[in-house]
Amino acid sequence: MNQHQESSKTHVKVIDLISDTVTKPDIHMRQAMFEAEVGDDGYREDPTVCLLENKSSTLFGKEAALFLPSGLMGNLVAMIAHMDDKRGCEVIVGNKSHILLFEQSGAAQFAGLQMREVSNLPDGSLDMTELREKFRPSNPLDYESYTSLVCIENSHNYLGGVVIPLEWLDQLGKFVKEKNVPLHMDGARVFNASVHLGVPVSRIAEHCDSVTFCLSKGLGAPIGAVLVGNKMFIERCRRVRKSLGGSMRQSGIVAAAGVYALDNCVERLAVDHWHAKKIGNGI
Amino acid sequence: MNQHQESSKTHVKVIDLISDTVTKPDIHMRQAMFEAEVGDDGYREDPTVCLLENKSSTLFGKEAALFLPSGLMGNLVAMIAHMDDKRGCEVIVGNKSHILLFEQSGAAQFAGLQMREVSNLPDGSLDMTELREKFRPSNPLDYESYTSLVCIENSHNYLGGVVIPLEWLDQLGKFVKEKNVPLHMDGARVFNASVHLGVPVSRIAEHCDSVTFCLSKGLGAPIGAVLVGNKMFIERCRRVRKSLGGSMRQSGIVAAAGVYALDNCVERLAVDHWHAKKIGNGI
Amino acid sequence: MNQHQESSKTHVKVIDLISDTVTKPDIHMRQAMFEAEVGDDGYREDPTVCLLENKSSTLFGKEAALFLPSGLMGNLVAMIAHMDDKRGCEVIVGNKSHILLFEQSGAAQFAGLQMREVSNLPDGSLDMTELREKFRPSNPLDYESYTSLVCIENSHNYLGGVVIPLEWLDQLGKFVKEKNVPLHMDGARVFNASVHLGVPVSRIAEHCDSVTFCLSKGLGAPIGAVLVGNKMFIERCRRVRKSLGGSMRQSGIVAAAGVYALDNCVERLAVDHWHAKKIGNGI
Amino acid sequence: MNQHQESSKTHVKVIDLISDTVTKPDIHMRQAMFEAEVGDDGYREDPTVCLLENKSSTLFGKEAALFLPSGLMGNLVAMIAHMDDKRGCEVIVGNKSHILLFEQSGAAQFAGLQMREVSNLPDGSLDMTELREKFRPSNPLDYESYTSLVCIENSHNYLGGVVIPLEWLDQLGKFVKEKNVPLHMDGARVFNASVHLGVPVSRIAEHCDSVTFCLSKGLGAPIGAVLVGNKMFIERCRRVRKSLGGSMRQSGIVAAAGVYALDNCVERLAVDHWHAKKIGNGI
Repeated sequence: MNQHQESSKTHVKVIDLISDTVTKPDIHMRQAMFEAEVGDDGYREDPTVCLLENKSSTLFGKEAALFLPSGLMGNLVAMIAHMDDKRGCEVIVGNKSHILLFEQSGAAQFAGLQMREVSNLPDGSLDMTELREKFRPSNPLDYESYTSLVCIENSHNYLGGVVIPLEWLDQLGKFVKEKNVPLHMDGARVFNASVHLGVPVSRIAEHCDSVTFCLSKGLGAPIGAVLVGNKMFIERCRRVRKSLGGSMRQSGIVAAAGVYALDNCVERLAVDHWHAKKIGNGI
Repeated sequence: MNQHQESSKTHVKVIDLISDTVTKPDIHMRQAMFEAEVGDDGYREDPTVCLLENKSSTLFGKEAALFLPSGLMGNLVAMIAHMDDKRGCEVIVGNKSHILLFEQSGAAQFAGLQMREVSNLPDGSLDMTELREKFRPSNPLDYESYTSLVCIENSHNYLGGVVIPLEWLDQLGKFVKEKNVPLHMDGARVFNASVHLGVPVSRIAEHCDSVTFCLSKGLGAPIGAVLVGNKMFIERCRRVRKSLGGSMRQSGIVAAAGVYALDNCVERLAVDHWHAKKIGNGI
Repeated sequence: MNQHQESSKTHVKVIDLISDTVTKPDIHMRQAMFEAEVGDDGYREDPTVCLLENKSSTLFGKEAALFLPSGLMGNLVAMIAHMDDKRGCEVIVGNKSHILLFEQSGAAQFAGLQMREVSNLPDGSLDMTELREKFRPSNPLDYESYTSLVCIENSHNYLGGVVIPLEWLDQLGKFVKEKNVPLHMDGARVFNASVHLGVPVSRIAEHCDSVTFCLSKGLGAPIGAVLVGNKMFIERCRRVRKSLGGSMRQSGIVAAAGVYALDNCVERLAVDHWHAKKIGNGI
Repeated sequence: MNQHQESSKTHVKVIDLISDTVTKPDIHMRQAMFEAEVGDDGYREDPTVCLLENKSSTLFGKEAALFLPSGLMGNLVAMIAHMDDKRGCEVIVGNKSHILLFEQSGAAQFAGLQMREVSNLPDGSLDMTELREKFRPSNPLDYESYTSLVCIENSHNYLGGVVIPLEWLDQLGKFVKEKNVPLHMDGARVFNASVHLGVPVSRIAEHCDSVTFCLSKGLGAPIGAVLVGNKMFIERCRRVRKSLGGSMRQSGIVAAAGVYALDNCVERLAVDHWHAKKIGNGI
C-alpha cells in the first residue's frame, strides 16, 4: 500500500468514525447467527432472510425489501432497476456523494448510466437551482439523455455525518413528484439520521421510491444491506441482484444478525451518535 | 410461481441432487462461525477471510485467492478480469454450461463479452474440432472479435455431475497454452471431481489460470465462493469485485464456515458422492 | 497486413464476389449525387433522405425507414431497439451469420446482448429443433435471460449467397408470432434474394419486424444502409442511431445514390446474379 | 415536435449560427465529389479517404487520422480508445461541453465511462482548481475510478463560439503531461478557432493527444468528421469505429468534399467568422 492509499484509507476511516463507529458483532448477535434457521434464498426459502426483509419493509413503510451483500450493490441495483425501459439515462447525484466518489463508477461501468453531479450543500441537501438546471425535459430530443433518477445520501458520509433537514426532503419530494422521476436514498447510515432527528426511518423515507441501508455500519452486523421499495420494483431488483452475483444461498446466517440489529441496536445508536460527535469535534 | 417456474425449479434441484447434496451447516460449522475473528475485509483486515484465501490458494496450487458472495460472481469477475486490455472479446463456453445457461448473460450484460458456445461432450469436455473452429486468430481483423478466454465446468452440473477426464484437461491445457489464451474453470463442484478422480484439486486445476469453487454446495457452508489465480490476476479481480458490490465487511463470519468446510467436509464428499450416484441412477 | 489477414480478406472478397459484385457508382449515380437537394437530416430536413426512407418503407411494406452509414450499424441499432424494456437478453442468430462472425460482437459490446447461435442449414435457414431448444420461456426465472429477438440473414453471405426458401420464412414467421418475439432480417443483399426468387422484397420481409438492407453492395451506391420497420420502432432506432454517432448532416448527397439505386439498379441485379453464379461455379 | 423540442432546436440552431454558419456544399465541392476516385475503405483502399486522412494529420501535426460519419462518433471513439486497459474510468469534461450535454451520454452508455464535469469558464477553459480536485490519484484504491482522459472543446459551442486562449492550453498541456493523462479536443469548430487566433490548427492541437474536427459545419462539407492522433491510437480507433458501424465503403465520395474543404474553405471561414460575430451581437 503506497502513501496515497494509506492516507486515503485513513481519511475514509476517520469519516466512518465521525458518522458512526464500526462495530464488531457482539456475543448476542453471534448467538442469533448460531441459531438461525436457514434455507435456499435463491428460491426464497430462507425464513430468516424473509423475516429480515419483512421487518425492513415495515420499518420503512414500503411494500417489499431485498437483502444484499453490500450497500454498494444496493445502490447499483436500485439505479439499474429505476432505469425502466430507457437507454441514455442520467442519474442526479450529490457532488460529494459516496455513489459518485467511492463506488468505482459502477452505474456507468455496468449500466451505462451517466451520473450528473449537483452541489451538495453543507447540510447534505442538493442545490435546488442546479438540480432544476440539470434536469432533462421529460420528452428529450435524440441527442439528450433522460433523467431517470435522483439520489440523495442521508446521513451524509463525506460531509461528516450531517443529517438532511426534513423540510428539504419534503420540498425535494414535491419536486420529483412533479417531474415524475423516482427518488432513491443511499441510507447507508439512515438510522443515525433517525436517531438524530428523533423520527422513525419511515418518515425520512417518506418521499423515496427506494432506500438502501447498511446492516454492517452503525447497526453492527458483520455483512449486508437491505433495499426497500414497492413490490414491482423489488421484483426487478431481485433479477438484477442475481445477474450481479449478489444472490446468496443460505444467507439466513447473516440475515439473523440483521434481524438482531434491527430489534436491538437501533437504540444503541443514540449513544454511539453522542460519542461520535464528541470524537468528531476533537478532530 | 407459475408452472414453468415450478418445473424449472424442480429440474435444477434434481440436478443439484445428482451432483451433490445441498447441505445445511452443521453445529460444528456454526460453532466455527460463532467464534470467528473478524475485521474489515474492505481493507484486507479480516483474519478469517485471509486464512480462507490462503488455504484456498494453497489447495489449488495458485498464488492467490479471493472470497466472493457467490459462484456466479466468481465466474463473472474472472471473465471480466481476463479480458485484459481488449474490447470486442469472445469467451468460449460449453453449450450446456451453467455460465451460458443460468447466469443471465452477465458476461454480455455487464462486461460486453460475447459467449461462443462449443458442444459439450457427454463427459463434460468440449468438442475440440468445434473449439478450434471458433477460435479467432491471434491478430484479428477489425470486424472480428478476440478470443479472450476458454471456460470449462468441472464437475458438470447440467450433464448430471460428470467429471471431465484428466487426459482431456491435459490436452486442452496444451492447446490453450499454444494459443496463449487463458483457461478458467467453473469448479463450483470441483471437490466432487477431486473425490471422484482420487486426485487433489491442484491436479485438476493444473492447466487453469483461474478456478471458481463454491463453499455453499457440496461443502455445506451457507454462503460464498472462492476464486483462485495468480497474484496480478487476483488484484484485478479484487477491484472488479468491489465494483460489482461483492466486497463485504466483516465477512470472516461466513469465511469461517468455508475454512471449516475445507478442513472437515472434503472427505465427507466421498460419502455424499456415493449416495448421490445411487439417487441419480434411481431417477 | 499479415498472412492471416491477407487470406481472411481474400476469403471475404470471394464471398462478396459470389453473392454480388461490388460495384462502383456509375456516372448517372454520380450525377444524381451532384444534383441532390440537401438539408440537415439531424432535424429531418434533408428532402433526399426523406425520399429514400419513404421509397424504402414502401418497397418493403413497412411503415417507416431510417438511413444509416452502414449495414453493421443497421443490425446493431435494430438489436438494441428490439430489446425493449429488458436487461439480460439473448438474440438468436445463425452460427454462420455475419452478425455473429464479422461484426465484432457489437451486440454484446455495446448493448449487453448475448447472441445465441443456432445452426444454419445449407439453404440459409435455421435448424428449427435447435431454435426451439434455445428459446427461453416467456416468463424466465431470475437466472435465465430473455429471448428478445431472432435474426436471419437473406441472402446468406457466408454460405455463398444462398437464398432462404419462402416456405421456411412462412414457417418461422408463424413460430415467432406464437412466441411473441420479434424477427429481424439482415437483408444486406436482400435484393439479390428478390431477384433470385422472382418476388418483391416486401414478400421476403413479410414476417419480419425489421429489415436492414445495404445500398453499398449489389445496389452500387457508395455508402449506406436502410433499416425498415414500424413507426414506433424506427423512432427508437433514430435515437439509438444518434447515440452511436450515425446521424449525419446533409446526408442527402449519398442518399441520392440510394434513391437512384432503388429506381435503376434493382433490375441490373438479375444480370449480376447470373454472372456471379457463373464465377462462383468456376471457383 | 412539441414545444420544448421546437424551442430546444431553435436554441441549438442559434448557437450554430453564432459560431459558424451551416453551409450547403457549393458547386465546386459537388464537382469534387462527382469526380472522386473511390475504393473500399473497409480495406483502406479508397484513395480519396487516404488523401483526406493524410492532409488532416499533416495539418494537425499528428501521425495519423481517421474519417468518420460524424463528430459525435469521433468523440465517442476517442474516449473509448483512450481508456486503454482500464475499467472503472472517468473522463473530465466541461460542464457546458457538447460531449456532456448533447451526445446522449454515449460514453457511459456504450463504454461504461463516467463523465466528471468541471466548470467551464466564460472563455471556454476549465476551472483549474476544480480540475485538480476531480483528478483521481494515479494509483487509485479499489473503490475509486481512474481518470482516463481530459476533454476540452474549442471553439466552444454552448458558450457562443468562444475560443480558448492559447496560454491556457499551454498550462493545461503541462498539467496533463505531469499527470500522464491524455488530452482530447472536441474541435468540431477548431478551424474557427484557428481563424480567430491567427495560428494554424497544429498550434492549437499542440498539447492534444487527439482532436476531432467536423467537415460538416463551418467547412461546408455535407458529411463527416476526422479524428487525428498518433498511429497506435488511430489503429485502436479504426477497430472501435468498425464496431460502432462507422466504417463505410466507398466513402471517398464524401471524403472528396472534405479534401476540397480543407484546400479551399478554411480561408472563407475568416469571412464567415466576421459575419457570425455581427449576427451574434445582434441577438
